[in-house]
Amino acid sequence: MKALMISAIVTTTLMGASLIDEAKTAGLKPIPANAKALEKLTSNSKNPTTAAKVELGKMLYFEPRLSKSGLISCNTCHNLAIGGTDGMAAAIGHKWTANPHHLSSPTVYNAVFYSQQFWDGRSPHLEDQAQGPIQAGPEMAAPKDFVEGVVNSIPAYVNAFKKAYGKDVKVTFEKVADTIAVFERTLVTPSRYDDFLNGKKNALSKAEQKGLKTFIDKGCATCHNDIALGGTMNAFNVTGQYKHMNVGDFKGDANGMVRVPTLRNVTETAPYFHNGQIATLNEAIKEMGRIQLGANLSDTETAEIETFLKALEGKKPTIVYPMLPASTAKTPKVDVINN
Amino acid sequence: MKALMISAIVTTTLMGASLIDEAKTAGLKPIPANAKALEKLTSNSKNPTTAAKVELGKMLYFEPRLSKSGLISCNTCHNLAIGGTDGMAAAIGHKWTANPHHLSSPTVYNAVFYSQQFWDGRSPHLEDQAQGPIQAGPEMAAPKDFVEGVVNSIPAYVNAFKKAYGKDVKVTFEKVADTIAVFERTLVTPSRYDDFLNGKKNALSKAEQKGLKTFIDKGCATCHNDIALGGTMNAFNVTGQYKHMNVGDFKGDANGMVRVPTLRNVTETAPYFHNGQIATLNEAIKEMGRIQLGANLSDTETAEIETFLKALEGKKPTIVYPMLPASTAKTPKVDVINN
Repeated sequence: MKALMISAIVTTTLMGASLIDEAKTAGLKPIPANAKALEKLTSNSKNPTTAAKVELGKMLYFEPRLSKSGLISCNTCHNLAIGGTDGMAAAIGHKWTANPHHLSSPTVYNAVFYSQQFWDGRSPHLEDQAQGPIQAGPEMAAPKDFVEGVVNSIPAYVNAFKKAYGKDVKVTFEKVADTIAVFERTLVTPSRYDDFLNGKKNALSKAEQKGLKTFIDKGCATCHNDIALGGTMNAFNVTGQYKHMNVGDFKGDANGMVRVPTLRNVTETAPYFHNGQIATLNEAIKEMGRIQLGANLSDTETAEIETFLKALEGKKPTIVYPMLPASTAKTPKVDVINN
Repeated sequence: MKALMISAIVTTTLMGASLIDEAKTAGLKPIPANAKALEKLTSNSKNPTTAAKVELGKMLYFEPRLSKSGLISCNTCHNLAIGGTDGMAAAIGHKWTANPHHLSSPTVYNAVFYSQQFWDGRSPHLEDQAQGPIQAGPEMAAPKDFVEGVVNSIPAYVNAFKKAYGKDVKVTFEKVADTIAVFERTLVTPSRYDDFLNGKKNALSKAEQKGLKTFIDKGCATCHNDIALGGTMNAFNVTGQYKHMNVGDFKGDANGMVRVPTLRNVTETAPYFHNGQIATLNEAIKEMGRIQLGANLSDTETAEIETFLKALEGKKPTIVYPMLPASTAKTPKVDVINN
């Protein structure tokens, strides 16, 4: 009996260790535990992260006056309180317009780890991505010059840009987006899963480890890979056998493909899929097995994977709600009803 | 020369002291400097303030799922980042509906000091007030049972209510509103003006003291009195000689009167008046002089008063943005487009 127990412990330990190797071989990577390594990984060399930019970027992220109505901020649809998204099947923007392609808002948490942004993956990084929703008619609906007019009309913002970029900075629309991106680069959520991949073998329970193994064995990690467990490729064929295809007219990229979303904090980002047509995680796992892997996942396998996915709930950064500077007489007036 | 200087100093000091007395005689009161005294003053004996209630109340204040759409929280219109209001002339709510009476959103900061809530002053305290906007069709549009359904479907919320009120608590709509009110009771913003009234004679500059004196001498403090410099009475006659009367159909209370708003942080709460028809503080001061005091305030007097009002900008409490618990399978589904 004693020998058996020891044997079990040894086996467990080895399984933990070999599962880490297996996960890495499958293309899964942890968020670095080392703060400096993480900062290096998440900083854009052309737009390096600094404390002044992060602070200003946070203000702009929560700034409703960047929208044409003065009512909608980045945080409206990518709400940091509720998983970095909005809980909607299709995003709602300017004048209560639903996304015309019935696309849901992807979470902003861990989006820094994506190599391609937006549902069709058309954008290479957050600096570029952040320019989109501010201008998009059904989202924040603000022309570039409107945004520049707002920010330049408020001396506290202009001073904050000077502090962040030097006294000769020109506060352009692109600079606004760049600065928001720097804040977004800090929105990473390390979890017990990362502790596990970083070598702490008991950070995941046995059931969670079993789920991770099933996740790998069934092929989920083929697309849900790298640090974000997603974000590195377009792989979901919207013109395929997806049973909720008829909601929205989104065609995906040139090949009809949709970007693979992150699975981090997936318990907080329902409803699922690009058009938000799947309400529960259990259903999402089964549907993915069917469409993407050609596999009818059993209830047991589905539950195992779900148990693993729950372990991807990460620790959110502490965000002190920003106090934003007041408008001035020069700030463009909004007519929220008529414009 | 030396005698003159000494005389000037003595006069200044005495003026500071006598101005404090004058302000108090005029009905102006400071936010207490003592934390315990402030807590006693702002706590509702029938719904005492506790740390657990404040924390839960903050979560509910930022909770968009309390609205029928799942998109609008208390903070949408009473945005703590921009002076506790929304910068709109008329509030925008459910399905982008403008307030049907063209009423603007009053700031939530320091509303705890009001003896009457809402523009017509119909509500006696924040616990009662908080029930209104959640249910109002053009605001959050959520029936009581919907709100109760949402909160009770999320175990983390039910547990937080138990922690705040004891294990036998029934999570009713009224309990939700009560808890939001407790958070709102903490939203006070002490300023240099309070330091001055609390006895620190050099907390206001000479120009600001001069402005305060003009404010009192012209009669502004007759209505803008007590701690909030407002909130104690309905005094503005909407059926009077107000030149922007024709915007909206708000009739005020039974006597056609509108509640006097606070002047604290008034630099952050434009546009002004109940229907948001006045863009600048300077114009608001002149219009108030004309309508309420029958006085054509000179440019100098107006500027003096404006200088004083700017000193009412207070220190906002530090608010850590809450992380809200995820919805569950039992959480009522929303159909943001069709409902």
